Amino acid sequence: MKQFSIGQKASCSKTFTETDVVLFAGLSGDFNPIHVDAEYAKQTKFKKRIAHGLLTSSLISQLLGMRLPGEGSIYLNQTMRFRLPVYIGDTVTASAMIKEINEEKNTITLVTECHNQYKQLVLEGEATLLTPAN
Amino acid sequence: MKQFSIGQKASCSKTFTETDVVLFAGLSGDFNPIHVDAEYAKQTKFKKRIAHGLLTSSLISQLLGMRLPGEGSIYLNQTMRFRLPVYIGDTVTASAMIKEINEEKNTITLVTECHNQYKQLVLEGEATLLTPAN
Amino acid sequence: MKQFSIGQKASCSKTFTETDVVLFAGLSGDFNPIHVDAEYAKQTKFKKRIAHGLLTSSLISQLLGMRLPGEGSIYLNQTMRFRLPVYIGDTVTASAMIKEINEEKNTITLVTECHNQYKQLVLEGEATLLTPAN
Amino acid sequence: MKQFSIGQKASCSKTFTETDVVLFAGLSGDFNPIHVDAEYAKQTKFKKRIAHGLLTSSLISQLLGMRLPGEGSIYLNQTMRFRLPVYIGDTVTASAMIKEINEEKNTITLVTECHNQYKQLVLEGEATLLTPAN
Repeated sequence: MKQFSIGQKASCSKTFTETDVVLFAGLSGDFNPIHVDAEYAKQTKFKKRIAHGLLTSSLISQLLGMRLPGEGSIYLNQTMRFRLPVYIGDTVTASAMIKEINEEKNTITLVTECHNQYKQLVLEGEATLLTPAN
Repeated sequence: MKQFSIGQKASCSKTFTETDVVLFAGLSGDFNPIHVDAEYAKQTKFKKRIAHGLLTSSLISQLLGMRLPGEGSIYLNQTMRFRLPVYIGDTVTASAMIKEINEEKNTITLVTECHNQYKQLVLEGEATLLTPAN
Repeated sequence: MKQFSIGQKASCSKTFTETDVVLFAGLSGDFNPIHVDAEYAKQTKFKKRIAHGLLTSSLISQLLGMRLPGEGSIYLNQTMRFRLPVYIGDTVTASAMIKEINEEKNTITLVTECHNQYKQLVLEGEATLLTPAN
Repeated sequence: MKQFSIGQKASCSKTFTETDVVLFAGLSGDFNPIHVDAEYAKQTKFKKRIAHGLLTSSLISQLLGMRLPGEGSIYLNQTMRFRLPVYIGDTVTASAMIKEINEEKNTITLVTECHNQYKQLVLEGEATLLTPAN
């Protein structure tokens, strides 16, 4: 059985490309023009298409599912506050830190954050997962 | 400018296929075996591969971005509690109902839920969005 | 700096779906009918479409790039002998074991194998990688 | 039955785009930052994201499966030595030349190479295939 401790951290990074945005639009069906219409986006305060919020948070899915708590863990709860837009071409680092361990229920609560390449916080929240069976 | 009112509702539905799960694994990088390894999944209490939680919630992204509040809205906040697994082949209906309108800040808060084809609640939470510029 | 030792092992698994085969055909341009034509495949000794050999080996890419030696490692060399076909729906486990460490050149050589859900060897070979800078 | 001869050649070419790299990461699960993190790649000796080695070699899969020996051939063996990185935007030509024909076993061995747009050798190796049934 994997050992976890309060304060334990993990992170992973990825550049969000135009391809990612196109694929997420297709997968989700969210063709909000702010994500897929470059002409529309020019007229907004963002000036450029922005990544879907849940596309950004998909990097947290990788982090939690593959690293901490890792394989076999099951999502129970996720909160997310979108602080700043992620633009096509931005590189995002998702990080997670264990905040609480409930040994009785076999759950772990983590602070989850995403920062862009300028170290700006773009997404913050918390996740609770059922840890892999042991 | 679009008019919104408390209690206003919208919904949309989709069958989550094996292809959706494969594509979301590829987009997110979340290859947690509970999602992509049929042999592993057999050994778990779920017995079968389950959809990624954030894949299920991507249907909410479609609902909010395309219908209510609709095009041009910007995600500020989303909470999600995963109540039951979504299996490959399940058909999920995402629904949203306006709970709060803040005219000063131009934001709308909605109750967001997903149910499977058996009318079971699989995901619940709340979303806050900035409404389209007017 | 990561520490490596002779005999160190890692593995990862995935079910190869029809979606994977379709996507690999599209990405590689290899539309050999044995992979994409179900009627053609029926007439062969395999009776069914088989996964592209290099699709199977892509799981080794995940294993080497993400786990052992892991992030930042650079492929120098890979040999592969395809022993048995991988069918759509098969679950493949890729495993790697360190066989040789060259500290001067900063390279690692690993035995790489893939087995199906019946524990049959489907692919075997060796890989050499430049290890992450330290 | 197709006739083959020693020295027989074929080739095919393709530009490796950012989309190819994103799709191969998703298909393989190999999110090694050298392939998907532009900021990380800047800090390496390559300065830019490079294509996955097995993505480059997927062009050989097209060449062997579609042209020489062509449709219906089955991969038995492939060796690959990665000589130089392939960057996003590079155009690669895969070429194959028959080196050996084993009429008893119905196999063909080919020298397989990939060159970039500057005529630099980026990948070399050998492939053996079972030729299409006759």
